[in-house]
Amino acid sequence: MSNEAETKVFGRRVRRLEDRALVTGKGRYLDDIQPAGCLAAAFVRSPHAHAAIQSIDASEALEMPGVRGVYTMEDLAPFLTGRRLVVGLPSAAIRLQVDRPVLADGEVVHVGEPIAIVIADTRSQAEDAAEALFVDFDPLPVVSDCRDALRDGAPTVHRDGPHNCLATFGFSFGDVDAAFSTATHTVSGTYEVHRGGAHSIEGRGVVAMPDPVPDRSTDRLLVWSSTQTPLALKKVLCQLLDRDDDGVRVHTPDLGGGFGPKLVTYPEEVAVAAVASMIARPVKWVEDRQEHFVATAQERDQVWDMAMAVDAEGRILGIRGTLLHDHGAYTARGLNIAYGSGVTVPLPYNVGAYGIDISVVLTNKVPTAPIRGAGQPQAAFVMERLLDKAAAAVGIDRAEIRRRNLVRADQMPCEKPLKLRGGGNIVLDSGDYPATMESALKRVDWDGFAARRQASREKGLLRGIGLANYVEGTGRGPYESVKVEISRNGRIQATTGAAAMGQGTETMIAQIVAEQLGGELSLVSVRTGDTDNPLGFGGFNSRQTVVAGASAHAAAIKVRDSMLKLAGHLLETSPDDLEVLPGRVALKGVGDRHVTFADLASASLGLPGYPLPGIETPGLSARESVVINDMAYTNGTAVAEVEVDPDTGSVEVLDFTFAHDCGRMVNPDLVDGQIVGAVAHGLGNALFEHMLFDQEAQPLTTTFADYLMVTAAEMPTVEILHTESPSPLNALGVKGVGESGVIPITPAVASAIDDALSEFGVHIARAPVSPQAVRAEILQAQSGGQAS
Amino acid sequence: MSNEAETKVFGRRVRRLEDRALVTGKGRYLDDIQPAGCLAAAFVRSPHAHAAIQSIDASEALEMPGVRGVYTMEDLAPFLTGRRLVVGLPSAAIRLQVDRPVLADGEVVHVGEPIAIVIADTRSQAEDAAEALFVDFDPLPVVSDCRDALRDGAPTVHRDGPHNCLATFGFSFGDVDAAFSTATHTVSGTYEVHRGGAHSIEGRGVVAMPDPVPDRSTDRLLVWSSTQTPLALKKVLCQLLDRDDDGVRVHTPDLGGGFGPKLVTYPEEVAVAAVASMIARPVKWVEDRQEHFVATAQERDQVWDMAMAVDAEGRILGIRGTLLHDHGAYTARGLNIAYGSGVTVPLPYNVGAYGIDISVVLTNKVPTAPIRGAGQPQAAFVMERLLDKAAAAVGIDRAEIRRRNLVRADQMPCEKPLKLRGGGNIVLDSGDYPATMESALKRVDWDGFAARRQASREKGLLRGIGLANYVEGTGRGPYESVKVEISRNGRIQATTGAAAMGQGTETMIAQIVAEQLGGELSLVSVRTGDTDNPLGFGGFNSRQTVVAGASAHAAAIKVRDSMLKLAGHLLETSPDDLEVLPGRVALKGVGDRHVTFADLASASLGLPGYPLPGIETPGLSARESVVINDMAYTNGTAVAEVEVDPDTGSVEVLDFTFAHDCGRMVNPDLVDGQIVGAVAHGLGNALFEHMLFDQEAQPLTTTFADYLMVTAAEMPTVEILHTESPSPLNALGVKGVGESGVIPITPAVASAIDDALSEFGVHIARAPVSPQAVRAEILQAQSGGQAS
Repeated sequence: MSNEAETKVFGRRVRRLEDRALVTGKGRYLDDIQPAGCLAAAFVRSPHAHAAIQSIDASEALEMPGVRGVYTMEDLAPFLTGRRLVVGLPSAAIRLQVDRPVLADGEVVHVGEPIAIVIADTRSQAEDAAEALFVDFDPLPVVSDCRDALRDGAPTVHRDGPHNCLATFGFSFGDVDAAFSTATHTVSGTYEVHRGGAHSIEGRGVVAMPDPVPDRSTDRLLVWSSTQTPLALKKVLCQLLDRDDDGVRVHTPDLGGGFGPKLVTYPEEVAVAAVASMIARPVKWVEDRQEHFVATAQERDQVWDMAMAVDAEGRILGIRGTLLHDHGAYTARGLNIAYGSGVTVPLPYNVGAYGIDISVVLTNKVPTAPIRGAGQPQAAFVMERLLDKAAAAVGIDRAEIRRRNLVRADQMPCEKPLKLRGGGNIVLDSGDYPATMESALKRVDWDGFAARRQASREKGLLRGIGLANYVEGTGRGPYESVKVEISRNGRIQATTGAAAMGQGTETMIAQIVAEQLGGELSLVSVRTGDTDNPLGFGGFNSRQTVVAGASAHAAAIKVRDSMLKLAGHLLETSPDDLEVLPGRVALKGVGDRHVTFADLASASLGLPGYPLPGIETPGLSARESVVINDMAYTNGTAVAEVEVDPDTGSVEVLDFTFAHDCGRMVNPDLVDGQIVGAVAHGLGNALFEHMLFDQEAQPLTTTFADYLMVTAAEMPTVEILHTESPSPLNALGVKGVGESGVIPITPAVASAIDDALSEFGVHIARAPVSPQAVRAEILQAQSGGQAS
Repeated sequence: MSNEAETKVFGRRVRRLEDRALVTGKGRYLDDIQPAGCLAAAFVRSPHAHAAIQSIDASEALEMPGVRGVYTMEDLAPFLTGRRLVVGLPSAAIRLQVDRPVLADGEVVHVGEPIAIVIADTRSQAEDAAEALFVDFDPLPVVSDCRDALRDGAPTVHRDGPHNCLATFGFSFGDVDAAFSTATHTVSGTYEVHRGGAHSIEGRGVVAMPDPVPDRSTDRLLVWSSTQTPLALKKVLCQLLDRDDDGVRVHTPDLGGGFGPKLVTYPEEVAVAAVASMIARPVKWVEDRQEHFVATAQERDQVWDMAMAVDAEGRILGIRGTLLHDHGAYTARGLNIAYGSGVTVPLPYNVGAYGIDISVVLTNKVPTAPIRGAGQPQAAFVMERLLDKAAAAVGIDRAEIRRRNLVRADQMPCEKPLKLRGGGNIVLDSGDYPATMESALKRVDWDGFAARRQASREKGLLRGIGLANYVEGTGRGPYESVKVEISRNGRIQATTGAAAMGQGTETMIAQIVAEQLGGELSLVSVRTGDTDNPLGFGGFNSRQTVVAGASAHAAAIKVRDSMLKLAGHLLETSPDDLEVLPGRVALKGVGDRHVTFADLASASLGLPGYPLPGIETPGLSARESVVINDMAYTNGTAVAEVEVDPDTGSVEVLDFTFAHDCGRMVNPDLVDGQIVGAVAHGLGNALFEHMLFDQEAQPLTTTFADYLMVTAAEMPTVEILHTESPSPLNALGVKGVGESGVIPITPAVASAIDDALSEFGVHIARAPVSPQAVRAEILQAQSGGQAS
């Protein structure tokens, strides 16, 4: 790939294949799926953050119009092999096992926890009946904050739990104590990043239907779910419903966004599938927004106490501290957010020593699970905040301290003394981090900022500029299968379990496949998110272009080789004399002698009684599962320029520059789309989105009127600068990009706010940074103290 | 395989896996498939053997209760890419292309040809409306007999056809003229085998349904058909309905027998699928018995003029002659029956020279296509009849002349100077034909027959004994895919497009797979006849145990190897120290250290972020398509002992011995079942079944009252003797057996009748041999002439 001077479609800004359908109303989202005779489900959810369930009385609900049934954990249990969804990855660090029950199992541990599923003819009937269900709760003490959870005498999140510390683990390398004892400067801070959600446009939803025409030998359950991980859902359903691997098919329709929470397999998905199976009817449940606020995974809830030691020139000698990670009430996914936070801190820089102790703590809140960035934005926030503080201590420019510490191009590949979750080494694979940063600084005229600051000041506004670097581990392995096949009508079919959440997965795979197979995109059909053939894990961790891309590439090359061999046989020539053109394989330079894809596909399957024509294996088809264990590290620099109104505390982002390097780009338009979307997400994290709970862990922000999302009005123009340092870890040289845009936003914005408020000596240590917080910082500074 | 002293399940008489469901009413046949909202189809069929269609008036039919639509060729054509089913295999011998239209295309050429499809709410409504359709026919001249078809001035079967000779070809080796000119004796005869059907218990049928829950990217048509070749049907549907290969799924439910006619892809299947697609509703058509008599493929209609030259000792110097094969009015499958007849004649014997000219001739009758034996029973009839005549001419025993000519064990593998249809050589792969024959003769006490003849004579009955040898080419290539997979619940799933017509395909594959994977049959599920994953051709030509068996074996070994490797990694030992036991892989000789199939399957798929545990490719799954181009030749000897009542002409088969060698047997019970069923089929061919047409090609036998099937009352006890000469062509050493039982029956019975009537000098030259025919032979002999 990388040797070719010119490509046909790979790397080009081609239009997204999925867009014609999506923009003409032909998208098929979960709620568009309406099998004949489909019943509606609604969930009865806990109003308490912690309570024992004494009894449930469904008698009134069952009498209501249209109601077909009400099912609790006790009703489902006889049809399940277990009562809980075991979804966490194994880890020696885990001290408590808190797997989620399919429905509340005698106790509720967060507001919104599903207690019963009501089935009715219509959704409104189901909702009415859900309200009529009588649940006798016995309220129990609540843990709302992760710091409180570890205090002596704290109530336990689970009635019978021994304590609230789910796991403790850490990372360390180098001699941290020596680093701090020999340092010229040490800086430290307590950093908090508050809870928020992902808020995909479409919430979750699931349809489950027994096979309408079952065979004698198979009794399949057909499931559609708005999930990023159809294969993971299938695994859980096969296990809990005791079915063969081909006894469940999960298919993802169009997804109105994923962003992380939809990678979790949820109790609602199991409950709907179990009931559909029990009553032999199709059942649909579609999450409403209020449910999304209390029952869909959230993230970012972390408290860091961290310190950095630097020498006289600002070189980082060591970093140490602690991280408290709020896990919520159950394990929805595992330790990966806290793990990702812990390893990400020192990644972009040369850091002499590192030591962090991490506690993953239970609270009576909805479980956390990765949201775009998966713990890495918090790590970048902490690291970049400390660097700003250190620059001030050393007395050098914020860009300069980064220049002095960034991992250099001549260090690549650069092995870090840290391990991946699966045991492999963390090796930064490629990139020129300083050059990427300089490209951003050049674009924003970093050194000429003083004049712009002055101009704002004349309007009564405080202007600031800030920057942040990031490195993201992308393309998590081990694999994602892709099958490529030439149909007898000459079309190219690619199938994968990789999910498309709207990020252009179909286009990405089509470009990679078409590049090898004649370059005609219109001949390629891509089916994503179908568990029927492929193996893999789904869409998360900015992984699909890397792992599914690598498999698509390998499969397309295999099919290409078979086509050339077969065409050589049919055209009685050497495959070396042939080239693959759109829809046909032809003699190089001789326009007329060719054989079409359609004829090749038919010939490849053979005829009864006849030998295969020049090939050993029938069919033009290959399913590949390229195994990639190392991660490909994307890097970049964000520079934000803001104006703060000192009177209101409001922050306006005037300009945003995002210089990044995600290796070779399959389609720069897709990359740009991911970056701009992620910047919007990041600005929400930095300035607006805050999922608030009171002391009783009652959620306070359960509508978009309370929980503020970024709108177009708040979005600056985003200037995107591309660098392409191919990853040496995969044949295409690609890295992931889906999440990276979000990672450096909060620290860049915080740095810019600090800079705007430099006269007050403000250091932003909490996100999101609300106008009230800015005002409090100013007032506190003016009164000579520090904001609370 | 063949090196193992003992097997676990391979070769054992285990109970058929499919039988519990089938005998408890849980079989799921085509008519059991009833999707919600399914409409019924009935076909309007031609009452004429040949007529032009002037016009069709559906107005009355359309007014009838429940009728949803009436569709002719003109109505379907806009939705199809072509008007005809192109199903024949390529051959230079073909002089006329007579592919079948989806519905009659302005002309009907046999009684029963479908003209229109009527869709109604119920089948009876559809049938009533079909009767009300007005078709204005213009009758045309008819060709009813294949001999008449070639006469000068014969009308043409197709109005615009240039002649009626579809194809001419032949076989020859050696110097035939020299053989005849130097022969001591020459014998000759005209042999006729009349037309008959296969008459599976369940007729044909098809259900087509648009995907009830289509995805944005796929719009699948789901089809169920009582077919032996789901993959062939899918191919035709994709082509005519212009769909991607994954745009059509064909699945075979349980089949109440196949026997050949269901290997054809029929116009009705296309018409039903096209209408279901057009009107977006499920549609079902189930053939009734009368339709089966006029619209389902028939066979056996051949006229042979043949001669044999032998030396003084009865050694065969040469065979020559001609074969007229009645093709019916269209090509339903190709030239394979006539081809198979032509090559089979000299196979079991050492024949010095051979020359045959074959004409494949059109008639205005339902098309012919292979029925169990596919032309080989006719060849055996001719060859064995000539041998009996030659034995008489030489003056030696019928067994002795065979002894002197049979291919010997020391000649194996024995290349014949003949070619397979696909170009490969015909090589008899293994066997000891004389030993097989002797085993049969020993069992029947051939030499002690005179005493038994005398005992019958004392009852006024004429007793005779007869024998016949056969060799059948089985296991036609090139391949049939099988996928084997370990499910995460520890079950073993095997999937194949190979069709199960009742012969025990599921059991056969399960035994082959289980043999490699622990030997526990109850852990294996086999899905047959599904076009979704596998590639291949289906069930015909006694091929599935050979080709699908070979693929199942190879796939199971691949999965076994992966399991051992993975288990070695997990148990930290060498795979060599492990053995595969039922449901687990364990340390040899150490009972306790093991890992279950379920755990292996889960581990094999990996976890996100973790390397695969000791394996390179995820999953315990393999799809294999073992390519086998050479055929495996089954052989055997049938000996029939009959009593003829000279007054009524009735023939009673007293005793039937069948000694055969189909290589290694996967399950002798399955083999016995195939043999006994085939003997019944063969006795029908020999004595009863005769599809009669008059001079206008009007069928005269369209009920079981007219067309006589063998019943239990006519069945003798069949003594089966097994020899096992492993085929060297596949790893299992297996050969096919599904058809072989039928091949030597007619000649063995004819030989026995001749023997019974030896005092009259009768030589049976036509089958079936009815009581009237026997009486005619006796009367003719008594009057000194020859029967007409």
